Amino acid sequence: MLFWEDFHEGHVASCGRYVVGREEILAFARDFDPTPIHLDDAAAAATPLAGLAASGWHICAIFQRLLTDGLLLKAECLGSPGIEEARFLQPVHPGAVLSLRRAVLETRASKSRPEMGLVKFRFELLDSAGTAVFELVGTLLFGRRNPGARLA
Amino acid sequence: MLFWEDFHEGHVASCGRYVVGREEILAFARDFDPTPIHLDDAAAAATPLAGLAASGWHICAIFQRLLTDGLLLKAECLGSPGIEEARFLQPVHPGAVLSLRRAVLETRASKSRPEMGLVKFRFELLDSAGTAVFELVGTLLFGRRNPGARLA
Repeated sequence: MLFWEDFHEGHVASCGRYVVGREEILAFARDFDPTPIHLDDAAAAATPLAGLAASGWHICAIFQRLLTDGLLLKAECLGSPGIEEARFLQPVHPGAVLSLRRAVLETRASKSRPEMGLVKFRFELLDSAGTAVFELVGTLLFGRRNPGARLA
Repeated sequence: MLFWEDFHEGHVASCGRYVVGREEILAFARDFDPTPIHLDDAAAAATPLAGLAASGWHICAIFQRLLTDGLLLKAECLGSPGIEEARFLQPVHPGAVLSLRRAVLETRASKSRPEMGLVKFRFELLDSAGTAVFELVGTLLFGRRNPGARLA
């Protein structure tokens, strides 16, 4: 298991592979985001998205799945205080193959909770050409291997 | 249809009703956020969430559904440049009944695109007791009834 002490500023890693299926795009949109750009090929083709594209929240959910499989299930993660920024950079069309890149921007111990520390990441979803289609900056909380240890 | 000119700073409205089912929480988590707090009653009970709770991205998706049904399908919405802030205020447990409250924080014409205007909202998901469980501040783009008209 990874603890807070295992994350270091500047570290970059990539993981995972997620194929975004057409039926999955339609099913998510029917449940949660039933607008023509996510449901109707002709309507979507006439927009700047240039064709049927996944709901932004679906892209966020795919990001979470890659993050969970690639990192969180292997770490003592204690949740997140929130999202600092999320940007949809490119439309995600059926057949897109996405992977997750994470970069550690900052790590710091918690002042109020000596059993945990904070790690601020820049996450990107990359398509098969290596182009970033989604970016999210956010902080995750991790347990410390040595709770209450003094800061180095 | 609602256009940009129909939104006014300070206007508050509520809409919709969404019952968050236990099976739906589990299905979303299996697909996108497979961690014990969203899948396992006993594991979740031992956390500050105090019981099985919906994934944060699931809450976002439910927000989108209420927004789409209650506003976007009745408006000339042209998308969103992004999310400025999103906060998960309370866990959402099975059986929660949520509604959406929107408040217009600001409206302004687009300088570069005279056919559209921007509306900044504070959105809240409220439970049946009226407690906010989720808050999101974001801007939506709407078509103008009178494209290119001068600002009042």
